[in-house]
Amino acid sequence: MANDELGVVHTNIARPDPADVAALAAYGVATVHEAMGRVGLLRPYIRPVYPAARVCGPAVTVLLQPGDNWMLHVAAEQVREGDVLVAACTTESEDGFFGELLATSLRSRGCRGLVIDGGVRDVADLEKMDFPVFSRAINAKGTVKATLGSVNVPVVCANALVNPGDVVLGDIDGVVVVPRAKVAQVAAAAGAREANEEGKRAQFREGTLGLDIYGMREPLAALGLRYED
Amino acid sequence: MANDELGVVHTNIARPDPADVAALAAYGVATVHEAMGRVGLLRPYIRPVYPAARVCGPAVTVLLQPGDNWMLHVAAEQVREGDVLVAACTTESEDGFFGELLATSLRSRGCRGLVIDGGVRDVADLEKMDFPVFSRAINAKGTVKATLGSVNVPVVCANALVNPGDVVLGDIDGVVVVPRAKVAQVAAAAGAREANEEGKRAQFREGTLGLDIYGMREPLAALGLRYED
Amino acid sequence: MANDELGVVHTNIARPDPADVAALAAYGVATVHEAMGRVGLLRPYIRPVYPAARVCGPAVTVLLQPGDNWMLHVAAEQVREGDVLVAACTTESEDGFFGELLATSLRSRGCRGLVIDGGVRDVADLEKMDFPVFSRAINAKGTVKATLGSVNVPVVCANALVNPGDVVLGDIDGVVVVPRAKVAQVAAAAGAREANEEGKRAQFREGTLGLDIYGMREPLAALGLRYED
Amino acid sequence: MANDELGVVHTNIARPDPADVAALAAYGVATVHEAMGRVGLLRPYIRPVYPAARVCGPAVTVLLQPGDNWMLHVAAEQVREGDVLVAACTTESEDGFFGELLATSLRSRGCRGLVIDGGVRDVADLEKMDFPVFSRAINAKGTVKATLGSVNVPVVCANALVNPGDVVLGDIDGVVVVPRAKVAQVAAAAGAREANEEGKRAQFREGTLGLDIYGMREPLAALGLRYED
Amino acid sequence: MANDELGVVHTNIARPDPADVAALAAYGVATVHEAMGRVGLLRPYIRPVYPAARVCGPAVTVLLQPGDNWMLHVAAEQVREGDVLVAACTTESEDGFFGELLATSLRSRGCRGLVIDGGVRDVADLEKMDFPVFSRAINAKGTVKATLGSVNVPVVCANALVNPGDVVLGDIDGVVVVPRAKVAQVAAAAGAREANEEGKRAQFREGTLGLDIYGMREPLAALGLRYED
Amino acid sequence: MANDELGVVHTNIARPDPADVAALAAYGVATVHEAMGRVGLLRPYIRPVYPAARVCGPAVTVLLQPGDNWMLHVAAEQVREGDVLVAACTTESEDGFFGELLATSLRSRGCRGLVIDGGVRDVADLEKMDFPVFSRAINAKGTVKATLGSVNVPVVCANALVNPGDVVLGDIDGVVVVPRAKVAQVAAAAGAREANEEGKRAQFREGTLGLDIYGMREPLAALGLRYED
Repeated sequence: MANDELGVVHTNIARPDPADVAALAAYGVATVHEAMGRVGLLRPYIRPVYPAARVCGPAVTVLLQPGDNWMLHVAAEQVREGDVLVAACTTESEDGFFGELLATSLRSRGCRGLVIDGGVRDVADLEKMDFPVFSRAINAKGTVKATLGSVNVPVVCANALVNPGDVVLGDIDGVVVVPRAKVAQVAAAAGAREANEEGKRAQFREGTLGLDIYGMREPLAALGLRYED
Repeated sequence: MANDELGVVHTNIARPDPADVAALAAYGVATVHEAMGRVGLLRPYIRPVYPAARVCGPAVTVLLQPGDNWMLHVAAEQVREGDVLVAACTTESEDGFFGELLATSLRSRGCRGLVIDGGVRDVADLEKMDFPVFSRAINAKGTVKATLGSVNVPVVCANALVNPGDVVLGDIDGVVVVPRAKVAQVAAAAGAREANEEGKRAQFREGTLGLDIYGMREPLAALGLRYED
Repeated sequence: MANDELGVVHTNIARPDPADVAALAAYGVATVHEAMGRVGLLRPYIRPVYPAARVCGPAVTVLLQPGDNWMLHVAAEQVREGDVLVAACTTESEDGFFGELLATSLRSRGCRGLVIDGGVRDVADLEKMDFPVFSRAINAKGTVKATLGSVNVPVVCANALVNPGDVVLGDIDGVVVVPRAKVAQVAAAAGAREANEEGKRAQFREGTLGLDIYGMREPLAALGLRYED
Repeated sequence: MANDELGVVHTNIARPDPADVAALAAYGVATVHEAMGRVGLLRPYIRPVYPAARVCGPAVTVLLQPGDNWMLHVAAEQVREGDVLVAACTTESEDGFFGELLATSLRSRGCRGLVIDGGVRDVADLEKMDFPVFSRAINAKGTVKATLGSVNVPVVCANALVNPGDVVLGDIDGVVVVPRAKVAQVAAAAGAREANEEGKRAQFREGTLGLDIYGMREPLAALGLRYED
Repeated sequence: MANDELGVVHTNIARPDPADVAALAAYGVATVHEAMGRVGLLRPYIRPVYPAARVCGPAVTVLLQPGDNWMLHVAAEQVREGDVLVAACTTESEDGFFGELLATSLRSRGCRGLVIDGGVRDVADLEKMDFPVFSRAINAKGTVKATLGSVNVPVVCANALVNPGDVVLGDIDGVVVVPRAKVAQVAAAAGAREANEEGKRAQFREGTLGLDIYGMREPLAALGLRYED
Repeated sequence: MANDELGVVHTNIARPDPADVAALAAYGVATVHEAMGRVGLLRPYIRPVYPAARVCGPAVTVLLQPGDNWMLHVAAEQVREGDVLVAACTTESEDGFFGELLATSLRSRGCRGLVIDGGVRDVADLEKMDFPVFSRAINAKGTVKATLGSVNVPVVCANALVNPGDVVLGDIDGVVVVPRAKVAQVAAAAGAREANEEGKRAQFREGTLGLDIYGMREPLAALGLRYED
């Protein structure tokens, strides 16, 4: 299951091959989502806190309690170079769980960014540092440190299941999660998709219609589409 | 993972012991959620379509495409006596995926109710039939039958992971999912909790305060709570 | 266009044949919406203020200003026996534009109910009177009488275009608008649909699957649906 | 200020004359809101958890922390016969802060009901007990007891300022707060308004139009309203 | 009516005089909305996907099905130099109907931009291309091509009626639609309004108050506004 | 109370020492909110209309009616050099109450910016002028001038009580209100907090964990946090 273990930190998680992560990082979220067969997308209420934010890396997962960011400090210790923190919450909470000091701490550990189903603050500083954060809210309201959650358990974050070591990729179009075992395969499929699109792009640029590129006229007619002057 | 397999129907799922399901069905959602350690709750936007709706049973899961209810018909065949249909969607969609005809079909198969992260219609008929439905919307808008989803794959429904055969319990307080392997244990814990609460209820009824029943005065004072006249 | 004329009252609108309206009134919103080809539905945020509310009749339309219910009084004079008031607003406003006194006034003129893209109040009284109201909010906040709107102009109400004299039908599934010229035809189509469903309902009740009733197995297989044990 | 004192319980608050509260209790929220000059209304997202819920009484106020209901137990001790608990939160939180056990406790102290800018659970039991609750959500998710708030400080609840001892009145139209010093005066104004409305109701019932009862034809014409055939 | 014809493409629509469109394009949305008498505005949830997005041109309209972008390809063929695509949906859907490839195709046909009551993706590319898009969501989720909608029928888009050939104008303040027959007149009124505002701006800049510029002191006093020290 | 006086303008309000306001202006909203003990924050739906907007100054308060901006003109006369306008509304309204002309007027009076629980327009111009505005919506829809509100009365704005002369501070993290009597004290506390954070920042930068900086390992262990390989 997910989100069902409280009070535990898994210290030893499997991560994908960094070369595969690097390959995946070259593509956009929309492309990767298509390359995976249109699965793995977080709900679109998760948005970058500044437009140029972009992140890709294996997930260290955190399960937070509402209005309580204690476990983010616990998680910081589990982060390795290249990781991305993915924080879910046991309930809906838009408080400011995260700010510039924690970003400084995470960066010093090699963390590449944060995806959080909650709020964050110090957004001007995060942009200055170019520490990419994807959140559901911006909120100056701070949090307490009183209740246990977990680190590196499977979590459901913004309606997507994220296992520790899965790769999360975020840009202005949203955030997608790629299962650890599929990273290489998805990166390859994304590359193939881009190559294919590059050919189509040239046709589109010259004015050829999707109706013709994709052979849509016949199926549309078969369904009864009619043209009237 | 979850929500990541399209175009497949698993015909053979493990279900919990019916006696355990019956035991669990005696309790309310709030009690069961507590008994599980406060995990497994669907987001509270999932609401019963009539106030008296109540459901408990093993999940047959369905992954739908937006505005497309084709897989509900496919799922109907997989339902056995006592099951509850749990429908997730690959994206947010509040169309009316389900109505009285499908309820009639499901009931004839022994289905006990529906939990759906989408919309439903024919609500007056559903109430007349007492076919319990928990949904995110009521919406007369119908759906098409054009694109494949899946049946009996793990799904994320309203931010909760549901595996086929997990038990879902719904009442006016919401919907909770209990992993198949924990049904007996959770039912027992719920019973213990109710027994404990029964004792407390008597004390509360006589006017004893929670401050005294739970021994809260000392920890409150330790944190510095002060009383002023 | 619609919503584009302010300060005018059209006193002479065409209404459909009352017999056609009566025929249509026998059906539910979901059925009528299907019978029309799945068009004409108001957005599902419009809800009945009590569960048993049901309405059907030609629309007298009103265009309101935010927080201002003056034009509802102007509209009351234009209502004839059997009409339904349909109120749009020049912007989003959830104030309580309407209550029991106006309902009393409208009922005395033969008005059958109200659909309003705004708020209403005195809901307990409205239910006692069984004066059906479909609104986007319940709100005790009253309104002023300061700015002109219009009566019997085309309006866009909850994303649906309503012309004066079109028939609106509302029940617990939502509200649908039927163009004046199509009322008889839609009522007939709704009847045919119900007859067809009645046959299917019997089959469903006996346990026949939609997969077989609708011949879905072949197209599902053609798209590659696979069954796994 | 309001919501700005944490960690304090005021044990001695002024309450209005019970006779004035009883007088006010005879009226509906919409009437009282008008009688006060259209001020004092809580945001309309606060809704009764069952349709017949109705409450009127002096406020014992509570300031909660998100996902933490500890202070409700502290507040219970401060409640006297006839009081209503009014709970604000330092941030937006829809967790289930309150259920049937706390209702049993409050009722034993003479508490008449609860208004809470948060979630509640055990709603079926609350309705059975007829313990009126007005909340922003229904949610089975429980809360912790870890952080101090306050009791009987001024709070902002759903955008309305509530001082301890102010009277809150709730019904299906919403919740309004009447300052302690104005209860008698507002009850009198509500009575006058009802008497005035009773006369108008009779006229409306006989078919007289608001246009004539309120003398609206001239000001409408002055603003340029035109009638077209 | 609107949104009521499915499966048809009107190939021959009337467009306004390009000189009138060019005249209108010089003004902002707020000014044009005022110049039209405060009508024609789309709901404010429609937002530019990048801050500098600006568009003006005659509408080619599209009616989409939820999660299905097939008709955008059909519409592309109907676009002429200077047109703007306006896409409504038969229900609420925030999927990513549109991205950079379709933008490339539309641009090659002379299309000036897109207004869509749905989601879009490839937003970084759209900004790089400076292809202005106004949408209700940003969402990487792709769509299918399975169900017919229509092109160049009247549509209701974000609560505004748009006829093919009407002019849509969008900037950071929102999107407004100007009926084809009124484009010249509205452009003239917008110009007059701007000239008038230019004079007022000078007065405001020098510190003269709106109270005096607009002669508000007397009507405010007449309504009883009182000043207290 | 607040929001309860209509039709009055208080012309003589107490303001804090400008040196204290200047001291406070050096800090960010998140820091000040913490320095106050986590109170005084407006709801996070209030957002800057451009990212670099920043404001700090004593509040001149305005209570508006929905869709009516008359009182903003009345308020302009009460503004002195350095003030910030804080506008609440008697109900929820997202109309465009404010634009570039009013900004020009306010700037000429020395006003530093606007916080409004409503909508604004001319956002491109506001950014060009660098006139900071914090609002709940951007909306081209204009407003009327028909109904009295008040100026310099206590208001509840986005769930926070604001008294005239209180200081409001806004940046990309949100808006916080500091009571007039506490400005110096809060500025000092903010400075102390920043100094303290500066020390911690250095430690975090070098890779020391919050677990160690804040001494969290022991309390976490005491609550039962366990580490698993």
